[in-house]
Amino acid sequence: MLTRIDHIGIACFDLDATVEFYRATYGFEVFHSEVNEDQGVREAMLRINGTDDGAASYVQLLQPTSDDSPVAKWLARHGEGVHHIAFGTPDVDGDAAAIRDRGVRVVYDTPRRGSMGSRITFLHPRDCHGVLTELVTTPGASAAGAPPADPSDH
Amino acid sequence: MLTRIDHIGIACFDLDATVEFYRATYGFEVFHSEVNEDQGVREAMLRINGTDDGAASYVQLLQPTSDDSPVAKWLARHGEGVHHIAFGTPDVDGDAAAIRDRGVRVVYDTPRRGSMGSRITFLHPRDCHGVLTELVTTPGASAAGAPPADPSDH
Repeated sequence: MLTRIDHIGIACFDLDATVEFYRATYGFEVFHSEVNEDQGVREAMLRINGTDDGAASYVQLLQPTSDDSPVAKWLARHGEGVHHIAFGTPDVDGDAAAIRDRGVRVVYDTPRRGSMGSRITFLHPRDCHGVLTELVTTPGASAAGAPPADPSDH
Repeated sequence: MLTRIDHIGIACFDLDATVEFYRATYGFEVFHSEVNEDQGVREAMLRINGTDDGAASYVQLLQPTSDDSPVAKWLARHGEGVHHIAFGTPDVDGDAAAIRDRGVRVVYDTPRRGSMGSRITFLHPRDCHGVLTELVTTPGASAAGAPPADPSDH
């Protein structure tokens, strides 16, 4: 069950300049940054609201790390802009399976690693009225929808 | 001060079909719908998270009401997809003025009426790394960031 907007993914040519734009214009600060080789991106997560890691919403800024990555190809066609949106769920595996059963193409057979240790998959934009849609389960989010009382138990 | 993601605005050719896609695929229901003549759109707001009207996040689905509306022209160029993103603030006037002072073009001289009685303005996408960005103050959100204790006082 999708319970929140996890993030809005924005593709840019120059991550540092775009981070600085969001800081100078809105006061948004970088909460986390990483390179995701699997996705071919360098990224910065700006936390907009929510103090709990499992209930926060982010702007995710993405710069491709190579010219043949999916985000680089998207930028070449579209220019900078909103690349995808992501909904949070406690159960990305179950939701992806249910959505596939409804006839929507799910891009990965099994979820892959996303930002900050999350598990993610994507739904094909042609099946989603033009919107590349990501499903995200953040670490600590259980299938029951609540984080475990003591994460050290896991 | 921008304190949350208010909504993701998605342009579509057929509002009813797109609403049905979001319901059937994700279980999202229509929280509110209206026609905004000023914006030239028929729209549906799907509340994703947040139980308080002043702290919720929405998917906003937009269908143009005429072929010469801005959303119709955008659809003709881009096809269906994410049209804009919107950040919530308790003070759209103050934030718009401050952002204009930083050199970002603000589309309206004074905020206009948005969904559900909100007051909105837009920042020019060419000044925002390709992202049409809306600022929203929802009814009841005071400049101090909290809704009034008794809305009937107003």
